[in-house]
Amino acid sequence: MSDIETVLAQVDADLDSSLERLFALLRIKSVSTDPAFADDCIACADHLVADLKSIGFDASRRKTIGHPIVVAHGGPEPENGDGPHVLFYGHYDVQPPDPLEKWQSGPFEPRIVETPQGKRIVARGSSDDKGQLMTFIEAARAYVNVNGRLPIPVTILLEGEEESGSKSIGPFFAENKDELTADVALVCDTGMWDAETPAITTRLRGLVHDEVFITCPSRDLHSGMYGGAAMNPIRVLSKVLAGLHDTDNRVTIPGFYEGVSELDPEIKAQWDGLGFDEAEFLGDVGLKIPSGEKGRSLLELIWAQPTAEVNGIIGGYTGVGSKTVIPSVASAKLTFRLVGEQDPAKVLENFRAFVRERIPEDCKVEFSPEGGGAQALQLPLDSPHLAAARRALAAEWGKDAVLIGSGGSIPIVGDFKRSLGMDTLLVGFALDDDAIHSPNEKYNLSSFHHGIRSWVRIIDELAKG
Amino acid sequence: MSDIETVLAQVDADLDSSLERLFALLRIKSVSTDPAFADDCIACADHLVADLKSIGFDASRRKTIGHPIVVAHGGPEPENGDGPHVLFYGHYDVQPPDPLEKWQSGPFEPRIVETPQGKRIVARGSSDDKGQLMTFIEAARAYVNVNGRLPIPVTILLEGEEESGSKSIGPFFAENKDELTADVALVCDTGMWDAETPAITTRLRGLVHDEVFITCPSRDLHSGMYGGAAMNPIRVLSKVLAGLHDTDNRVTIPGFYEGVSELDPEIKAQWDGLGFDEAEFLGDVGLKIPSGEKGRSLLELIWAQPTAEVNGIIGGYTGVGSKTVIPSVASAKLTFRLVGEQDPAKVLENFRAFVRERIPEDCKVEFSPEGGGAQALQLPLDSPHLAAARRALAAEWGKDAVLIGSGGSIPIVGDFKRSLGMDTLLVGFALDDDAIHSPNEKYNLSSFHHGIRSWVRIIDELAKG
Repeated sequence: MSDIETVLAQVDADLDSSLERLFALLRIKSVSTDPAFADDCIACADHLVADLKSIGFDASRRKTIGHPIVVAHGGPEPENGDGPHVLFYGHYDVQPPDPLEKWQSGPFEPRIVETPQGKRIVARGSSDDKGQLMTFIEAARAYVNVNGRLPIPVTILLEGEEESGSKSIGPFFAENKDELTADVALVCDTGMWDAETPAITTRLRGLVHDEVFITCPSRDLHSGMYGGAAMNPIRVLSKVLAGLHDTDNRVTIPGFYEGVSELDPEIKAQWDGLGFDEAEFLGDVGLKIPSGEKGRSLLELIWAQPTAEVNGIIGGYTGVGSKTVIPSVASAKLTFRLVGEQDPAKVLENFRAFVRERIPEDCKVEFSPEGGGAQALQLPLDSPHLAAARRALAAEWGKDAVLIGSGGSIPIVGDFKRSLGMDTLLVGFALDDDAIHSPNEKYNLSSFHHGIRSWVRIIDELAKG
Repeated sequence: MSDIETVLAQVDADLDSSLERLFALLRIKSVSTDPAFADDCIACADHLVADLKSIGFDASRRKTIGHPIVVAHGGPEPENGDGPHVLFYGHYDVQPPDPLEKWQSGPFEPRIVETPQGKRIVARGSSDDKGQLMTFIEAARAYVNVNGRLPIPVTILLEGEEESGSKSIGPFFAENKDELTADVALVCDTGMWDAETPAITTRLRGLVHDEVFITCPSRDLHSGMYGGAAMNPIRVLSKVLAGLHDTDNRVTIPGFYEGVSELDPEIKAQWDGLGFDEAEFLGDVGLKIPSGEKGRSLLELIWAQPTAEVNGIIGGYTGVGSKTVIPSVASAKLTFRLVGEQDPAKVLENFRAFVRERIPEDCKVEFSPEGGGAQALQLPLDSPHLAAARRALAAEWGKDAVLIGSGGSIPIVGDFKRSLGMDTLLVGFALDDDAIHSPNEKYNLSSFHHGIRSWVRIIDELAKG
């Protein structure tokens, strides 16, 4: 057996233990957006540090202004000239599990569910991103177990705030520039084209998030005594939100489309040639009609068009039964997905101006002090690292990797470029039906297993140069 | 001292004990809309039965399809010809106390707060309706303590579902028609004109309540992966709710104004002459601009115009921080205040048709099985009971009672007429700033004290015939 075949055989032989290690990680409730889970995030970082140390990494939990970051160094010294030095990035934090009542089993009690399409790992974070980051760690473990070391210098960076704005990563990069700079960043937080076809993501949408609070009466009022007199903030908020899209589903905020250009005809032709089944994609979630601008393909809407989305709304009485109240306050959480050259700061500013214009003069509006976001990204298509990954993925999956866009946002890819001067290679094994951020999130066992094997091959191809 | 003066002196002497009895009632968490408090509602009914028995009433807790009803009989036998037989109605249930964090002390820990304007009783239900119903019971107690009996036949009916739709009262009336029918109903669940001026309410708005649930994707989705593809139910709901009013603040539901007539010019002139300070009324709750139809006076908007109001809305992620989700479901609770001859069933039907028309064909809408309501009411102005109450109130307060409308809804007044053939006399001592249904609900000690004395005088005037 060649060297690489021995490592792959080790991956196959060790799969049950790999799963046990993933389950241990999935049991930790590392929800980053809710301060109630701050200790779980620390425990999760400690767990990863211990695991990385066990396979020879120089690993440590690093303090930040928020949840800790895990940094680990392994393989040969970067200056020895062995292969490119890679920085692998993943995030150990997860989204809140609610609505809890929709989970068929506990979100932090991972289990294997057998389906006609194969085995699935079900738990919050199974796909986003604990399952994905463990594909790389398990690949590294296999190299260490077979050869005693990794063939190339590897730095691992695991963040704990990806699901809650990544506030700490900017300052952390500024303070640790030399330690973190490598030849290329590897990120495992994206998806495959389908369950049999690997993909490399070369376009990412940006993201702006904000929260708006509208106050009308100074206190909650009886809707009999005040109905017809006092303005209801839910009515004001509804008018604002209803006005965000026109009848063609275009976003109406003035200046919103500045920096959005029409898709290159060549790319459009490539995407049209992918055979993407729009009816099936929407049908899987019970829908038929795209929510984005009329006349555009679904892939274009998801990969190359911006959005304005309300992620949460609350106001008044929401318990059991009815309550005849005119509430004092109503609020909504929004995110905007950005493409091309849209400027996050301008999008935020234009949105807020749009809202302010629609607030009656005797009502009040406030915005989250956390509002902000990151620009969209397009990655180079001519790098040797991309070529290496394409060879590796074709060998593992027996099919060429598709170069895709992503509707999601991975702001750190922009930080790698701007702060550390590195391009990024985005390879991931998630699937559209993984239900990330939703109840019953899952990761296919096949994604996990072949994901580990894919990284073994990518590391090998990168080492060959 | 005349007989009536002795009873009034007894009220004054017994005020501290009256307050202690009210506090005991206010400590019981009889929230009717939330099934978690069902046992508290039973405890509250038992407490009232025991209290009424202690002053000679033949009182009992009566089983219903919902929370129990208290019925008590006192005074001479109705057939003896002493005065008119009155049925006094109040409700022992209260609204939920949330938002709890806005209360300055526990909602079920009543206390006296001293203010420059006098002493106030602060607790959930202090004004709506436990404080009010106790004004009548304490008046009855004073008669019994002084004279050993009431001068007229009195039936007391205390409901436990007024704040949650009064589902049991209809069947209960049907089953107990003979026992409950009297010459006139007395209801103490309305307000004064101001802290010094008594009022008798002769108009009440009707009420229709409904809840709407909009489902778009069949599960919660990631707003990156599906943003631009999957319709967001919050967006659909916002469009529906934003469309309920036009730019003149008129309700846009087709057929909504059927049965609403322009105000009689004489009544309009009366109301205009009341010296109602619109700016002060709105200013007290931090507002300036009426929310109802442009060009109408505030009293007309509250007493004689219908409304469409959203009492609660929820959808998506509403916890701390952000979550990039497109939710599967968004929902809203609504109430409509009715006037004139508006038909509750038609209003409900027209609203639901209005919503259905605005739901994209691949989304789904459902409504509460509890949706429904009651018609508006106007009471006769020429009855001897009204004349008796006006004499009594003028004597107690040194000012004539104002004949007012109410923006609120007391559906039972319609049931008294339709089921038992009785007119109702609506006399209450609440004030606009009592914050009923809101945090820090209060009842002025003066309302409580003079309220008791007012009922002593009203009973006396009714007995004189």
